[in-house]
Amino acid sequence: MPIRTVVWNENVHERENADIRALYPDGIHGAIAAALSADPALSVSTATLEQPEHGLPQSRLDETDVLIWWGHKAHGSVSDEIAARVQRRVAEGMGLIVLHSGHFSKIFKLLMGSPCSLRWREAGEKERVWVINPSHPIARGLGPCIELPNGEMYGEPFLVPEPLETVFISWFEGGEVFRSGLTYRRGAGNVFYFSPGHETYPIYHHPDIHTVLRNAVHWAYNPAPAWKDVHAAPNVPVEQAREKITVKGFSVHKPGEAGYR
Amino acid sequence: MPIRTVVWNENVHERENADIRALYPDGIHGAIAAALSADPALSVSTATLEQPEHGLPQSRLDETDVLIWWGHKAHGSVSDEIAARVQRRVAEGMGLIVLHSGHFSKIFKLLMGSPCSLRWREAGEKERVWVINPSHPIARGLGPCIELPNGEMYGEPFLVPEPLETVFISWFEGGEVFRSGLTYRRGAGNVFYFSPGHETYPIYHHPDIHTVLRNAVHWAYNPAPAWKDVHAAPNVPVEQAREKITVKGFSVHKPGEAGYR
Amino acid sequence: MPIRTVVWNENVHERENADIRALYPDGIHGAIAAALSADPALSVSTATLEQPEHGLPQSRLDETDVLIWWGHKAHGSVSDEIAARVQRRVAEGMGLIVLHSGHFSKIFKLLMGSPCSLRWREAGEKERVWVINPSHPIARGLGPCIELPNGEMYGEPFLVPEPLETVFISWFEGGEVFRSGLTYRRGAGNVFYFSPGHETYPIYHHPDIHTVLRNAVHWAYNPAPAWKDVHAAPNVPVEQAREKITVKGFSVHKPGEAGYR
Amino acid sequence: MPIRTVVWNENVHERENADIRALYPDGIHGAIAAALSADPALSVSTATLEQPEHGLPQSRLDETDVLIWWGHKAHGSVSDEIAARVQRRVAEGMGLIVLHSGHFSKIFKLLMGSPCSLRWREAGEKERVWVINPSHPIARGLGPCIELPNGEMYGEPFLVPEPLETVFISWFEGGEVFRSGLTYRRGAGNVFYFSPGHETYPIYHHPDIHTVLRNAVHWAYNPAPAWKDVHAAPNVPVEQAREKITVKGFSVHKPGEAGYR
Repeated sequence: MPIRTVVWNENVHERENADIRALYPDGIHGAIAAALSADPALSVSTATLEQPEHGLPQSRLDETDVLIWWGHKAHGSVSDEIAARVQRRVAEGMGLIVLHSGHFSKIFKLLMGSPCSLRWREAGEKERVWVINPSHPIARGLGPCIELPNGEMYGEPFLVPEPLETVFISWFEGGEVFRSGLTYRRGAGNVFYFSPGHETYPIYHHPDIHTVLRNAVHWAYNPAPAWKDVHAAPNVPVEQAREKITVKGFSVHKPGEAGYR
Repeated sequence: MPIRTVVWNENVHERENADIRALYPDGIHGAIAAALSADPALSVSTATLEQPEHGLPQSRLDETDVLIWWGHKAHGSVSDEIAARVQRRVAEGMGLIVLHSGHFSKIFKLLMGSPCSLRWREAGEKERVWVINPSHPIARGLGPCIELPNGEMYGEPFLVPEPLETVFISWFEGGEVFRSGLTYRRGAGNVFYFSPGHETYPIYHHPDIHTVLRNAVHWAYNPAPAWKDVHAAPNVPVEQAREKITVKGFSVHKPGEAGYR
Repeated sequence: MPIRTVVWNENVHERENADIRALYPDGIHGAIAAALSADPALSVSTATLEQPEHGLPQSRLDETDVLIWWGHKAHGSVSDEIAARVQRRVAEGMGLIVLHSGHFSKIFKLLMGSPCSLRWREAGEKERVWVINPSHPIARGLGPCIELPNGEMYGEPFLVPEPLETVFISWFEGGEVFRSGLTYRRGAGNVFYFSPGHETYPIYHHPDIHTVLRNAVHWAYNPAPAWKDVHAAPNVPVEQAREKITVKGFSVHKPGEAGYR
Repeated sequence: MPIRTVVWNENVHERENADIRALYPDGIHGAIAAALSADPALSVSTATLEQPEHGLPQSRLDETDVLIWWGHKAHGSVSDEIAARVQRRVAEGMGLIVLHSGHFSKIFKLLMGSPCSLRWREAGEKERVWVINPSHPIARGLGPCIELPNGEMYGEPFLVPEPLETVFISWFEGGEVFRSGLTYRRGAGNVFYFSPGHETYPIYHHPDIHTVLRNAVHWAYNPAPAWKDVHAAPNVPVEQAREKITVKGFSVHKPGEAGYR
């Protein structure tokens, strides 16, 4: 069964700005979806902010294996409820790939628990994305680095938790560096942040970027069934303890009572 | 200057339940504060849920180096605003020590970004807290393990991100194990989760637990001045780039404009 | 193409001790190889200490994707040269699964760089292997824990580096805990340590242990071609720098000279 | 009591090359020792390759809290026995700071267990060392980056294990990036690798580099007494088990017998 992949985009710049629309006539989501569709192991669709429930009703998320997130100008327009819904689905096992300015999306900040802040400059300067972990599955098929003639500078410090692994680090013409590919796990869900991808440059038309995105979908995919009660904190009754024990001391909980939360 | 330490407690069980009050006549916060006060390098005070702003107005948090958090029955009564305020202050550099049932507190869930769920049993069974990283500063002065005659069982899987380091793992009489001491960094703030500490047992009167708590305050303390703009994403203008560059391509941001968030 | 898997065993206990031979008439390597062979995606063979070059000539290692290592009594009989050869091959991308008493094997100590010491007791006590990271590929298909009626106790502290991820933690009847499943990466090679497996108990006949071993082979497998020059430190000549630079300062190296090592 | 710090240097370039001697008339070790001596909390001495036992007899290592290592041309002249001795002392709790070309030293390779390879270019190009973890104690007192007018390029991939934390990442004029500050723990010993420091540039005269080195000594210092038996794997006899158990099954070890290694 193919990996059910949804590419989410706020889709605002493309509608407001003719230059960006010229670069991405089908939207950034369209460009990414086309790139992913070249992989027959993926079943790809898109969703955008302006759709009902931002295109992410619970029923659809339940049938999504990996979600890709691109947002920038309209982070504040994403409903808190839907951001929390995505977070829950990640905990159950949905993979999530957060791109570029998505570092400040509600969903990424919820998952990281840290400021997710950085430094930036929009000057179309050269960006060189170095593969620092060539054996990571996300880097498969790449050369030593990806050369982007134009990138938005994102600079350290990047206020995210120490990752499981650092896959990419970017060099910028103006003098900065940035950890541009980082992996995390949250509950049963694999999370990958990948920073290249500004809306005013054709980054999502670059074949190496396509390779990274396809690899990342495969890496983020968790084939286990959704872990529906990952948020539950079940009581293990004394009589079901794996070792025979007898109750000692007193208690605030009545037998069978749910825990506090 | 001493480390300004605030012990926060919801202080509900102690008022509602005479048995718990008998164990902790000054409240769990009082017991912990007394234990910490034995260390002359610490300046210790307490705060509780029922106080205005839960005892945590911004002005007080700004003068707090390390906050200790005990909550259980009343997680839902903590205001979202104050939980977010504590999260911001952690990002600026305040240390945070989350105890026991605080695994389901708003502040811990905000910082972890994951379910923070676990299994549990309140049977007063024996708990043995093994020091698995004896060289970690939080384990200083301890023997190979801490023997607790009565503990609430917390069992794996514990749905938290992979920690920086695992310091303690607990063995339970009923057959479970639990990672009982875990370290994290969020922004400039050090975070330590320590699971022993149920309200119906005298755990906070145990000298080894006192040692852990004192060590943890020292470990969590970040002597750097508060990082007030840790959430900011400052633009680095082209003319201030460390390498001379000229703008290429087009732009969605006007010069000097703030980024989107 | 199937994953070429070699099960290595020192094969001493089975020959010296009739009780162990009765448990493992085909040797521990034979039992493991039989279990792995149930997976059609694996192509399994065995190697033992007494063979020429311990059954691990360079040509065979070059055609091995994943190596499984069981050793105990004869760690000292493994040649330093062959241990170093295996270490080099791991760096190039061969997966390595180190079992039980292999914690003190030359190859594991070489890869960890730390003492790899632990506490132990051979009393046939109950061991319960808890899955603490149920979403990790190595835990796929398991329930909450593996119950072993008899295990050799291995106790913390276990002197290994902090792992990429902790997958399993064991509970022992005698009161100890142990991190029984740990992942690492060394160069291009994935390394998994799994502690259950004492020679005097039928642990390698347990279906859940078979599941772990099969999963671990799949996890450890790196499909990339061997990284033959992973140990090289190539000079990048000035004229091949990705940015045009001119030499400044003086030099200890002549142009084209190899670096020191 | 001050932190007993030993600065070790192979001290070959300074004797063979007049230009280097002019930069470091007291040797690289002398320059570093002078910088550290500005901190009254440190008690600093030096050791060099040509001394008996490379200046590192066991008795001296036993009284060393933190060792700093600079080597390049003469890695092969360091005796295997002394490298192993240093590795053992690190496991017991001695801090170790490995500088620059020390990435290929015997001691660093022993501790990492991985190739420790990288790319390099000696062109005196500009290096900018970015502080990516400003809250780490090793970065205390630094600005956003350290500007080095001339550095030897070290480029990724750098074949070391994923660190506990990445503290610095360097930008190079010629287009590369490098993780220039990485922390590890091996046994009871804290290990820091810091890449700036080529012998043909005055890097060890830079005040920010002095700050890093002083901070690193404080960070690496483990105040606990030396863990003398960190390599031991003690048997825990059945009668001393913390839970009462009786022996089941058969055994390969006689009571009281040492384990195999």
